Amino acid sequence: MNQKTSIPKGTRDFGPIPMMRRNYLFNTVRSVFQLYGYMPIETPAMETLDTLMGKYGEEGDKLIFKILNSGDFAGGIKSEFLEKLINEPENSSQLSKTMASQVSEKALRYDLTVPFARFVVQHREEITFPFKRYQIQPVWRADRPQKNRYREFYQCDVDVIGSDSLLNEAELIKIIDEVFTRLGLNILIKLNNRKVLAGLAEASGMGNNLTDFTVTLDKLDKIGMELVQKEWISKGFSAESIELLIPVIGNTGSNSDKINGLKDILKNSSVGQKGVEELETLLNIISKFETNCSVEIDLTLARGLNYYTGAIIEVKSQDVQMGSICGGGRYDDLTGIFGMPGVSGVGVSFGADRIYDVLEQTNGFATLTQTGTQVLFINFGPEDAAACQPLANQLRSAGISCELYPDGTKIKKQMQYADQNKIPVVVMIGETERNASQAAVKYMSSGEQVNIAFSELTNEIRKIF
Amino acid sequence: MNQKTSIPKGTRDFGPIPMMRRNYLFNTVRSVFQLYGYMPIETPAMETLDTLMGKYGEEGDKLIFKILNSGDFAGGIKSEFLEKLINEPENSSQLSKTMASQVSEKALRYDLTVPFARFVVQHREEITFPFKRYQIQPVWRADRPQKNRYREFYQCDVDVIGSDSLLNEAELIKIIDEVFTRLGLNILIKLNNRKVLAGLAEASGMGNNLTDFTVTLDKLDKIGMELVQKEWISKGFSAESIELLIPVIGNTGSNSDKINGLKDILKNSSVGQKGVEELETLLNIISKFETNCSVEIDLTLARGLNYYTGAIIEVKSQDVQMGSICGGGRYDDLTGIFGMPGVSGVGVSFGADRIYDVLEQTNGFATLTQTGTQVLFINFGPEDAAACQPLANQLRSAGISCELYPDGTKIKKQMQYADQNKIPVVVMIGETERNASQAAVKYMSSGEQVNIAFSELTNEIRKIF
Repeated sequence: MNQKTSIPKGTRDFGPIPMMRRNYLFNTVRSVFQLYGYMPIETPAMETLDTLMGKYGEEGDKLIFKILNSGDFAGGIKSEFLEKLINEPENSSQLSKTMASQVSEKALRYDLTVPFARFVVQHREEITFPFKRYQIQPVWRADRPQKNRYREFYQCDVDVIGSDSLLNEAELIKIIDEVFTRLGLNILIKLNNRKVLAGLAEASGMGNNLTDFTVTLDKLDKIGMELVQKEWISKGFSAESIELLIPVIGNTGSNSDKINGLKDILKNSSVGQKGVEELETLLNIISKFETNCSVEIDLTLARGLNYYTGAIIEVKSQDVQMGSICGGGRYDDLTGIFGMPGVSGVGVSFGADRIYDVLEQTNGFATLTQTGTQVLFINFGPEDAAACQPLANQLRSAGISCELYPDGTKIKKQMQYADQNKIPVVVMIGETERNASQAAVKYMSSGEQVNIAFSELTNEIRKIF
Repeated sequence: MNQKTSIPKGTRDFGPIPMMRRNYLFNTVRSVFQLYGYMPIETPAMETLDTLMGKYGEEGDKLIFKILNSGDFAGGIKSEFLEKLINEPENSSQLSKTMASQVSEKALRYDLTVPFARFVVQHREEITFPFKRYQIQPVWRADRPQKNRYREFYQCDVDVIGSDSLLNEAELIKIIDEVFTRLGLNILIKLNNRKVLAGLAEASGMGNNLTDFTVTLDKLDKIGMELVQKEWISKGFSAESIELLIPVIGNTGSNSDKINGLKDILKNSSVGQKGVEELETLLNIISKFETNCSVEIDLTLARGLNYYTGAIIEVKSQDVQMGSICGGGRYDDLTGIFGMPGVSGVGVSFGADRIYDVLEQTNGFATLTQTGTQVLFINFGPEDAAACQPLANQLRSAGISCELYPDGTKIKKQMQYADQNKIPVVVMIGETERNASQAAVKYMSSGEQVNIAFSELTNEIRKIF
């Protein structure tokens, strides 16, 4: 049996070094969340098909990984259906959808938002609102794998649900600022408001077509103002009303400049006015914080998610060219789909994999030199090894991680092991040392070697850690 | 849309309190693993069907959750097969197996051992052996859900691969001792050796039938010696040779008593002698450690896993009646199934869910009183709230987790929020306090309330954390 080893495409193994780095990233995010009073929850990897299907649009439904029912699932397929499949092979793609619901009733979660909404509704009696939770778990999507896009990846979500105060949005921006400051990354926080977008669509005479309006606007970065205008016109927006929007959308001035421009153009849209007021209040609260990063109004920001109803937030790296590394917004009715309407929430999601990539490219893991064992005891044979054990235990009691090489093999091989695993200190106790109750301590980076009494070993090594 | 909310049977949601407890448990295990030089890895939730199938026996194969291929999976089913399914509905259960391989090529991992073996073979060029790794991840099994048995649960595995030294077994026992000491649990470590079992089967004249021998022996606890003897005889073991084993297997004396008994009865079995020698050496190494828990030879211990070749280890709680809470052993050819023979390893797996249950029953989480926010700032309205923000930031800089209630609602509601979330300190800054640059600090457990100058707030609160 010489089986080829491989893993499903779009998935990854993480060895010790990436794991240490990922843990550093997750721990940073986690400690900031906790510092602001958010509490952890976890939901199962599998949800019922009912919970997930229809929540992410038709395209999303296709990307959900479905789990085959266990046992006699074939017995659950109707024979008329099987006949249809035999007679219409050209329709097999369409028939696969029908069949999926006959052979599967569970699926892997696609994001953390829908399971969170389900959690809130299911546990509404136990929860004290406002409920501040964070959740750090993997999600799965049957996307076509490509560079920086995986079929299994982690999301780090932080949400407050059950409060419509703008202090929540402000707090999330403070959290974003703190996370990226701790990670040593320069970022730009972009801010928009779905009500402002609705107001702009209204002002352009197409208030009932917000989706077309924002989908086109979203492309501004890529295709430029002229083509955006053309696309709007081709979709039926009037050229004259669009003309009015251009100076406001194209405004590259300060946030107050933008606010003033919006106030002017949105004076006849009540939803638009409400949006500007929210934006202004939020910027006002934030201005009193000490933040390290800049916050900038970006009217093209839509994030394509129809469930946002107020603030829309997105974070870009200032160091590395990359898509958004964090984003989110206000949603007024996420739990409505599960029969609990009128609960407003706001949250952001940190894209762990992209942040990891930015950290790698900016040398942001440079300080994480210590990945594993701090001290290796060389094994010179059973008797010498036995003498090492109590010393190793002393070091561990002092919080120093150490190991005794398990085999009494060639010293060269053992030193190579220390070298390859980047173990900074090697302790050697052979017969001579053992008889003198001394250990030879070698510091790998300098090559320096000193003899230390057993009783002083912990103190000696503690000096460098 | 008033959709019923539920999760798949055998899975669980974890709210803030169980999450804090689970994190405490995982962090304890993780820090001990790291202290002994083990490094973390993670593998994908999904493995290819090829990697998993056939590794856990026929029963195991049935319990593996298979993932439906995405897209046009129905087009991949052969029409002859569909016809068979129509014509032989009585065989649908059997046909489901064949069909699974036509509509699925990935599955959820069933344990951490097989993915680890796959990882080692796939990354053999990057790994320095001996490779000491730990892995803490969920696994999925389509078992019938029942009390304390879930379809999604965490395993915490720690293994050394690429060394056959008994120092590894000894180290794992030290790790077990340290983990449970830190968790405050009393345990008994049971020890056996597969070679000893092979020797005993040989001594009973049935060396070629080790499986029947151990499967029956494994039942000793439940059915007693007499029925074990009967079962052996019914399976073809000779009554006379079994008679010789009884005093050794039933020996309730000290470990040395048991060793001496074994040496005697196994004197004609070379594999048996090797096993006793390993047991004796291991006990000898351990005896020089300072361990808190007892280590006891248990000759009935087989753990049903055929891949064990040397030491077999199992841990039982001394406080609570429950199955094993940790277990493992030596395996000499785990990577052989993936084409890399002759690599010996040894490892143990901590059963997180069972350990959690033991901790709950022994009040082992009692010290974890602080689950979330330490300080709540009451919100008396926008201006007062604004005055709280810089103070909240000061506290956070000092590592104290705090939050400002987001809405300026009734004070009673805000105090209830503090109460229900077990927030120990509440800070109130109304107009009077704000004008005097003072905060009213209320300690929730005593009800005591003091007025503190803004500049002294951090120092005051730091006193109790």
